[in-house]
Amino acid sequence: MPAYATLEELFARLSHIEQAQGMLHWDMATMMPSGGAASRARQLATLKAVHHQMLTDGKVKDLLDAATAEPLDDWQGANLREMRRDWLHAAAVPGELVEALSRACSASEMTWREARAAGDFAQVAPLLAEVLRLTREVAEIKSQALGVSPYDALLDQYEPGGSTAAIDAIFEDLGAFLPEFLGAVLARQPALPAGPAGPFPVERQKELGLRLMGRLGFEFEHGRLDISQHPFCGGTPDDVRITTRYDEADFMSSLMGVLHETGHALYERGLPVAWRHQPVGRARGMSLHESQSLLIEMQASRSRQFLAFAAPLMAEAFGRRSGGWEVETLYAINLHVKPDFIRVDADEVTYPAHVILRYRLERALIAGDLDVDGLPGAWNEGFRDLLGETPPDDRQGCLQDIHWYDGAFGYFPTYTLGAMTAAQLFDAAVKAVPDLQVAIAAGDFQPLLGWLRANVHGQASRLGTDELLIRATGRPLDAGVFKDHLRRRYLGEEAVV
Amino acid sequence: MPAYATLEELFARLSHIEQAQGMLHWDMATMMPSGGAASRARQLATLKAVHHQMLTDGKVKDLLDAATAEPLDDWQGANLREMRRDWLHAAAVPGELVEALSRACSASEMTWREARAAGDFAQVAPLLAEVLRLTREVAEIKSQALGVSPYDALLDQYEPGGSTAAIDAIFEDLGAFLPEFLGAVLARQPALPAGPAGPFPVERQKELGLRLMGRLGFEFEHGRLDISQHPFCGGTPDDVRITTRYDEADFMSSLMGVLHETGHALYERGLPVAWRHQPVGRARGMSLHESQSLLIEMQASRSRQFLAFAAPLMAEAFGRRSGGWEVETLYAINLHVKPDFIRVDADEVTYPAHVILRYRLERALIAGDLDVDGLPGAWNEGFRDLLGETPPDDRQGCLQDIHWYDGAFGYFPTYTLGAMTAAQLFDAAVKAVPDLQVAIAAGDFQPLLGWLRANVHGQASRLGTDELLIRATGRPLDAGVFKDHLRRRYLGEEAVV
Repeated sequence: MPAYATLEELFARLSHIEQAQGMLHWDMATMMPSGGAASRARQLATLKAVHHQMLTDGKVKDLLDAATAEPLDDWQGANLREMRRDWLHAAAVPGELVEALSRACSASEMTWREARAAGDFAQVAPLLAEVLRLTREVAEIKSQALGVSPYDALLDQYEPGGSTAAIDAIFEDLGAFLPEFLGAVLARQPALPAGPAGPFPVERQKELGLRLMGRLGFEFEHGRLDISQHPFCGGTPDDVRITTRYDEADFMSSLMGVLHETGHALYERGLPVAWRHQPVGRARGMSLHESQSLLIEMQASRSRQFLAFAAPLMAEAFGRRSGGWEVETLYAINLHVKPDFIRVDADEVTYPAHVILRYRLERALIAGDLDVDGLPGAWNEGFRDLLGETPPDDRQGCLQDIHWYDGAFGYFPTYTLGAMTAAQLFDAAVKAVPDLQVAIAAGDFQPLLGWLRANVHGQASRLGTDELLIRATGRPLDAGVFKDHLRRRYLGEEAVV
Repeated sequence: MPAYATLEELFARLSHIEQAQGMLHWDMATMMPSGGAASRARQLATLKAVHHQMLTDGKVKDLLDAATAEPLDDWQGANLREMRRDWLHAAAVPGELVEALSRACSASEMTWREARAAGDFAQVAPLLAEVLRLTREVAEIKSQALGVSPYDALLDQYEPGGSTAAIDAIFEDLGAFLPEFLGAVLARQPALPAGPAGPFPVERQKELGLRLMGRLGFEFEHGRLDISQHPFCGGTPDDVRITTRYDEADFMSSLMGVLHETGHALYERGLPVAWRHQPVGRARGMSLHESQSLLIEMQASRSRQFLAFAAPLMAEAFGRRSGGWEVETLYAINLHVKPDFIRVDADEVTYPAHVILRYRLERALIAGDLDVDGLPGAWNEGFRDLLGETPPDDRQGCLQDIHWYDGAFGYFPTYTLGAMTAAQLFDAAVKAVPDLQVAIAAGDFQPLLGWLRANVHGQASRLGTDELLIRATGRPLDAGVFKDHLRRRYLGEEAVV
């Protein structure tokens, strides 16, 4: 059998194991009783070990090398490239280091939960320092294997081909723009109007969410909506599991969360069936994934067009027991800007500042320019520079996010890269598809979905993120369209590019 | 590292994979949307292949042999025996034959669903013949590996150490007893009384089921109750997932199903923690497993004592909107005997006749004394002999059960062995524990559960089924206690042994 065909068989089996892991993670977050945790951890650890062993088996490198000489078409070639990338990330790092990091992350993450609750950074600092020490070791090794800088090697785990050179330029542009822009928005923003009065029963919220998911194109024979503490999109492309949480006093944040996860789900579901269990058939990376959720949530759903369609359905769902269902009222509520110390509570305008702060700090941590003891001070200083105030404590500062404590360095920038990519893709779709926004106002998302299927979802990992974006929008990612979008939405200004 | 310790590590990993498979099966039956089926089948097939490869790796036999010479305690020795049994069943059969049988079962089972709906045995007969042909091959190979007859080798998959010699004696005894006994029961049985009037809302049925599960000792931090088309007990000992289905016109059958699965769940949950991920820590076999569900359902819950406790809770659950909640009324409904062509609808008295019929037929099929074409005729003739009537069609005859079509030969006898074991264990518990039935009447199941934990659950697979039963009840399984139980319950006769 040709080497490439042998590799396809191997990577299909690896994909089945990844899917099994995905389902077990979903179950853990949605269904599993607490007493199942220890056994579940062992199940997942064994699947991870089996997967790692299969991927790093001695013969895989030879097969990858041999396949390079075989005649492959476009998709096959891209598939081989993705296989090699998977293999490089897995094989580069010694098993003992992987395990040491995994143990350090578990310990740090567990202590972080207590430390955050207590607002006591010193409690978790030594554990975070150990995670950082091992992560820097991994970064150094992967840096050599991939031929990029240590931070870029970490970034590549989430954002294939991502580079600080590109991100720096974009974030500098945006970082320079945001403080003044925020001031202008706050200066002219009217008071938050009174919206519909609750309570909003969970059952009704769920029905409304399911109804809007269906309108957006979510296929319920290929997915579910459930409840979890932290909303996410999991499962597999043929069985997409999204989650939300409900607050009876506020239906809008849960609903926007459902629409956000639906964006992720539509991406997974639109991946090409022909490449279902192969690396090239996967979503391209985290920034493109986040672009799909934010395109649906921020670009499409927090628009007057969407609310023109959805406001009557919302009013109907909750029995119109109060006023506040006018499109303009809901629009103002959805887009209200209010700086907050907590990232996950941030609005569209201030969110990028949170991310830029974390990006700067994690780069310094990985480079060795900042150590863990200096983190709280650097955080507070950076926050003040970007958003004008100093967090009153570490709970509202450097203890708020799980990411670093769980070893996820290189992940944060993808949130804002995703937001900018969403703006750029939506802008291109609106220009390419006649009456796309008219259709949205009529509750018809097929024109938008069709464009996304062709230009993003169906491409899976065939192209690099940059190339995909150039083909879809005519240019690589820059901050321009996103800034225009913010100016238009929050200041009512017309586009300047 | 000693061979035994190496084997413990291997079998722990195998157990984690089995648990992952169990969770994926549970999800498939309860949560998975239909469109996830194809991917799920691939996930499960890969986990099965990985498991098989790990278990049949060349070095396992050497380790098993080497461990025999190492100093092992009682439990370790039993664990080694169970490891060898697992290995024998997996390694004896060539991989191609395992796969061919697996494919034949999938094809046959799929066609069976249509054939049963259409009542058309001829449609599925060639596929069943292929399953039988391959199963006989497997039986022949395992017969030589295990040193028992081909049918006993199949039986051993479900009932370790089970033998036709023992079953024949027991089933002959019971088969001779049943027809006359059934006649006597039907002759003196009063008409079915009018019970409580429905509808019984699903939510209320669920609440009642959860309440009774809790009283029986089900720990909800270690398990769940969900809905599936066919009720089952799945998951893992620390995360037991039981299911039921609801009928708004009849709460009792769902509730008794919940209690039945709770019996299975209590067994799983009571397995010794110290041996959690080892073969010796598993439930002993299918007849003992079924004994635990039937002990809770048939022996404990379909009793006057249980109903004295539960009838008021039932009435309360459904708002006492009608009469029929008297203990004697519910008791009569629960124990009404009515011969039926369908096994899963059978009552306690006629159920064994269904099983004895299938046992005789599958032995003849495996022995080559009966071929697939002769099956419908043999079925109908055997049914008439045991229960006095001839099924009007194959839908109500040899097409009704999935087992053979899915390759499960050797499974059927465990149902009735379980029913008899349940009677013998419950009888022993009542004699050993003062006021056990008084406690049940007060809704206190701890005395019963304590006895089961010590004598059955906590023993896991340390002892053979026979030895476990001798230690717990003073003698090996015979039909006597079960017959006494039936005479007492259905004819009001005192025990004759």
